[in-house]
Amino acid sequence: MVSEVVKKSSILKEQANALGEATTREKNEALKKVAESLLANFNNILKENEKDVHIAKEEGMKESLIDRLRLTEGRLQDIVDGIYTMIDLKDPVWKSNEAWTIENGLVISKMSVPLGVIGIIYESRPNVTVDAFALALKSGNCILLRGSSSAIYSNIALVKAIKEGLAKSRISEDVIQLIENTSRESVNEMVKLKQFIDLIIPRGGSDLIQTVVANATVPTIETGIGNCHVVVDESAKLEDAVKIVVNAKAQRPGVCNACESVLVHKDVAKEFLPRLVKELNGLVELRGCEKTKAIIPVKDATEEDWAEEYLDYILAIKVVDSLEEAIDHIRIYGTKHSEAIVTENYTHAERFLRSIDAAAVYVNASTRFTDGGVYGFGAEMGISTQKMHARGPMGLNELVTIKYAVRGNGQIRG
Amino acid sequence: MVSEVVKKSSILKEQANALGEATTREKNEALKKVAESLLANFNNILKENEKDVHIAKEEGMKESLIDRLRLTEGRLQDIVDGIYTMIDLKDPVWKSNEAWTIENGLVISKMSVPLGVIGIIYESRPNVTVDAFALALKSGNCILLRGSSSAIYSNIALVKAIKEGLAKSRISEDVIQLIENTSRESVNEMVKLKQFIDLIIPRGGSDLIQTVVANATVPTIETGIGNCHVVVDESAKLEDAVKIVVNAKAQRPGVCNACESVLVHKDVAKEFLPRLVKELNGLVELRGCEKTKAIIPVKDATEEDWAEEYLDYILAIKVVDSLEEAIDHIRIYGTKHSEAIVTENYTHAERFLRSIDAAAVYVNASTRFTDGGVYGFGAEMGISTQKMHARGPMGLNELVTIKYAVRGNGQIRG
Repeated sequence: MVSEVVKKSSILKEQANALGEATTREKNEALKKVAESLLANFNNILKENEKDVHIAKEEGMKESLIDRLRLTEGRLQDIVDGIYTMIDLKDPVWKSNEAWTIENGLVISKMSVPLGVIGIIYESRPNVTVDAFALALKSGNCILLRGSSSAIYSNIALVKAIKEGLAKSRISEDVIQLIENTSRESVNEMVKLKQFIDLIIPRGGSDLIQTVVANATVPTIETGIGNCHVVVDESAKLEDAVKIVVNAKAQRPGVCNACESVLVHKDVAKEFLPRLVKELNGLVELRGCEKTKAIIPVKDATEEDWAEEYLDYILAIKVVDSLEEAIDHIRIYGTKHSEAIVTENYTHAERFLRSIDAAAVYVNASTRFTDGGVYGFGAEMGISTQKMHARGPMGLNELVTIKYAVRGNGQIRG
Repeated sequence: MVSEVVKKSSILKEQANALGEATTREKNEALKKVAESLLANFNNILKENEKDVHIAKEEGMKESLIDRLRLTEGRLQDIVDGIYTMIDLKDPVWKSNEAWTIENGLVISKMSVPLGVIGIIYESRPNVTVDAFALALKSGNCILLRGSSSAIYSNIALVKAIKEGLAKSRISEDVIQLIENTSRESVNEMVKLKQFIDLIIPRGGSDLIQTVVANATVPTIETGIGNCHVVVDESAKLEDAVKIVVNAKAQRPGVCNACESVLVHKDVAKEFLPRLVKELNGLVELRGCEKTKAIIPVKDATEEDWAEEYLDYILAIKVVDSLEEAIDHIRIYGTKHSEAIVTENYTHAERFLRSIDAAAVYVNASTRFTDGGVYGFGAEMGISTQKMHARGPMGLNELVTIKYAVRGNGQIRG
């Protein structure tokens, strides 16, 4: 018997050529029909989402996670608005910044083309279901969704509404498939289906991502593990530094681009740290090195603290002797996600931008900005924290590959 | 005890930051010193290469493979010239075609940066040793070389000369390491060293590539398997078609961009096939479908023939009823390397360019052009036949990743 994963993946592979050649107008029209269908299905989607929320509560899920799972009319409207944003974005397919002619007259064009079939394995947020579909469709890719069991009723209702919308367009409703088997087994099966799936993006906790990457034969892109730092240089405007650290840590601590450690130069630590403590106003638990302890009251920071992604109201603090020490610390403990420096020193700013190996490096701004929406990508399929193919927020232009289209008039190789 | 592979990989990782930040002038100067050192070591390199050739002959290696292994003064001069070409190419690091400002004033620049440490696993051609080094150095990457046992004396001599050159420059001689253990074990070890190696490129036979990709936890790029086709459309200029098929098949049949099958439209098969036979003049063994057999004398083509990469003077021939049939055939049997059509029909030409999913798609030109040197990349680290990160010939611009450098003046997220 053919499994659900094999069946649905193979259907997507069959659809990939046709979707890859769909015109921008056809894709935009399909997105519009999907947006309309989601609106028409608001009540059913909310009702099904309520089932997920109910089960989650019964199972004792943390309130912060239930909040991520819950849909409201306002949130659904945001999701629909996201589709209209996607319609307004440029089609990423069959475009090029590079074409050239070689000596024998051949004209070589490097053109963008869809990947084919993209699989995404994700946790409870139902908005990802629609975002991932819209990004995939606009970039000409079929999408295989493997959401979590905790959002299964929501996801079934969302995908049903999406398919109803597609049925009114010229794009096949088969270009989206939801795996309803939410056991670990379906993940293990997906990651080996190289004949049907071109890319798998695991989005979730570190364990999920590492398991997928370790077991996959399908190419994968690691996402979203962020042990992010803010460095407060000796030349920093301390008012900005306080504001940036507070924002990077506490504006939304549960996300991957939140700051986990601050590295402050010894010459400004005495002035900066008390101001930071005052501004945080007890909201955040502080763990510091010996030198920090000599300035403000903090718990002891251990080796584990430097390495941990708290995703919580906890901040590790280290006083450093130099920019070099800060850079070395980030090289050891960073996860190559987002790193920031607050400085007025031009050389230090440029040094930091060049030397730090991460998806996004900031001068005088919060790490919280690493986000496809903020960068202008409309939405994101995840934030790549690895170096191959895509790095940082993955929008439409990260979901394509290239092809060399070469036009000649009889050339042969000598 | 630390193994050779671990030791050498970890040395490269330590060198990666410094090399990544080297200036273009420093890298070019180092390349020049290496070119001079190779010239100064010509006699020793040729002497060591002679040992490899001698052993290969004793072990009964095929003459065509011995020819790939053999270095001559002329070939060495070509290799050295390749380094000077690399010096002339633009530095691929810290460049960008994309920078933009978002509403709050943040300036986002998408900048190219080196990958770090690149490993290459390759077969007997000693020129790859120098090409891979030069590409890696210019793109700011350290290089781990795992050549074949049949070229070990040549590779040791080449790497020794390269290191002597580096010693006279401001770049460390540790940025290149050769694995001298040529057992399969060293490959198995390399492909798991994610902490030290950022990318592994297997270059060689299908078995090697599949083994590496299946076992690697380090990201890999599949290269160079080419079951390439030439389609002769009903509207083709038959003179060009004959010339292109002969070139694509027979100019150098042992390489991955050589043509393995020709798909000829039924309306021109009667005129085209006898002209092809005449031009090939017995040089190539022909295997054809039933319809081909009715026109020219050929062996029977079996299902295996459509799938096989002969890399030899053998050509499979199929008469097709339509362009669609040709495209479908390529979708089933092609390896996404290089595909060509000979046609005067504009719609067919554009249709072929769009519909065929391959690294390089040609209209009215030979498949033999898929090559980093021909495309203007100076050299190539291999030809990627997969879709992630790089596709087609991999030159300098395919050996970098990106980083978002974001400049602000105190921005926080609202």
